[in-house]
Amino acid sequence: MTLRNIKLIICYDGSSYHGWQVQNDVVTVQQRVTEAIEKLCSCGVQLTGASRTDAGVHALGQVANFRIDTPIPTANFARALTEILPDDIAVSQAADVPESFDAISDAKSKLYRYTIVTSEVRPVMSIRQCWHYPRDLDWELMERSAKLLVGKKDFRSFVAAADKRQSSVRTITHCGVINDSAWIYIDVEADGFLYNMVRNIVGTLVEIGRRRWAPEKITEILEAKDRCAAGPIAPAAGLCLMRIDY
Amino acid sequence: MTLRNIKLIICYDGSSYHGWQVQNDVVTVQQRVTEAIEKLCSCGVQLTGASRTDAGVHALGQVANFRIDTPIPTANFARALTEILPDDIAVSQAADVPESFDAISDAKSKLYRYTIVTSEVRPVMSIRQCWHYPRDLDWELMERSAKLLVGKKDFRSFVAAADKRQSSVRTITHCGVINDSAWIYIDVEADGFLYNMVRNIVGTLVEIGRRRWAPEKITEILEAKDRCAAGPIAPAAGLCLMRIDY
Repeated sequence: MTLRNIKLIICYDGSSYHGWQVQNDVVTVQQRVTEAIEKLCSCGVQLTGASRTDAGVHALGQVANFRIDTPIPTANFARALTEILPDDIAVSQAADVPESFDAISDAKSKLYRYTIVTSEVRPVMSIRQCWHYPRDLDWELMERSAKLLVGKKDFRSFVAAADKRQSSVRTITHCGVINDSAWIYIDVEADGFLYNMVRNIVGTLVEIGRRRWAPEKITEILEAKDRCAAGPIAPAAGLCLMRIDY
Repeated sequence: MTLRNIKLIICYDGSSYHGWQVQNDVVTVQQRVTEAIEKLCSCGVQLTGASRTDAGVHALGQVANFRIDTPIPTANFARALTEILPDDIAVSQAADVPESFDAISDAKSKLYRYTIVTSEVRPVMSIRQCWHYPRDLDWELMERSAKLLVGKKDFRSFVAAADKRQSSVRTITHCGVINDSAWIYIDVEADGFLYNMVRNIVGTLVEIGRRRWAPEKITEILEAKDRCAAGPIAPAAGLCLMRIDY
């Protein structure tokens, strides 16, 4: 029997979860989505998610796939799963994909957005989804620095020590800073990301935005290949996985 | 000794609170703000809030006042209180006001905004601050109906039975519907509001937006002076107290 291979696009506010990946004794998004599928289809499934987002990190475009024998039409799948899921998780799309499709290994690029709010008053309505940084940030300096990160480079200086992958070379295809009054968005698109890479990049860009470092410091940090050369890590709440391309 | 009279403007995401008003055995916003003032000033205070927002209702412009003998300059008050408060509450302004000022009885008008999201996919990032209504709503019909509510009228049909105030006559000075792609905002400004009045108005406008009722039905409902004549109550999460004018 050939099982169907189903691809899901999943959105979540990660504030209440210990990240994507199933763990013992804590609630994760992967666990909640797996439970919803198993309830809907009355059988066990193995759900593969493209990105292991950390505790408190959000997604509007997480991608996952699983293999199953079910007659449920894909058109109804997203809505039916969303109805079972808690309010802070939703499935925005479901599609039958070729048997060989794998959410992790087939990913060509991922886009993350990081949100900073510089208003003096705490943005209570968005506080779970931003880094409240109530000081002046020069977003144009940050934008100039961001451009220096684009290309195929060794991002060792922006990697958490916990990342055990051998190569820290990745290709950033886009790194841009958008300003909308008190809101600053940092978009980073790459063929792959290392552990804490976006949050370490953001922490570094903020050091530049507050004029502690000049934009050219980025080149120095890249060359150092040393985590200690970069800025502090930015909080998880501001980070959102926006899209994965295949 | 003359005490200072201090006016605060308070913002909160009400999702985690049992409304504004202090109650036994549950956590409320008034309680949290009172505790913060008492911690900051090391003395007991009586905090008067202009609006008793319900459980799950939000505010960007709640107003409260309290009397106190403290040398702390008003300029530092808002930030110092915000630092003590939980992340989902902030004080955006603090000001010394005349001894006679009372947040409740001096209020001239209040503005509430109700947010509906009609997207097919659940808006996970805003789900605590909207009514997700994933069906087609004709906002122009709703806007036409909203206009019929403007003026000095008896809003008995839009009042919860629990409201014991004798007169249900209020003056709505503005009632407008704004559409921005899948988002619909309903703004209602009046010299005063009855219990559940905005949520009952919104529930009724939604019946009109989904074409169950014609816009003219509003006039019929007003004339009935009977809660049963209006639509069902809209959920608390969509409601936000935006501003109070004095």
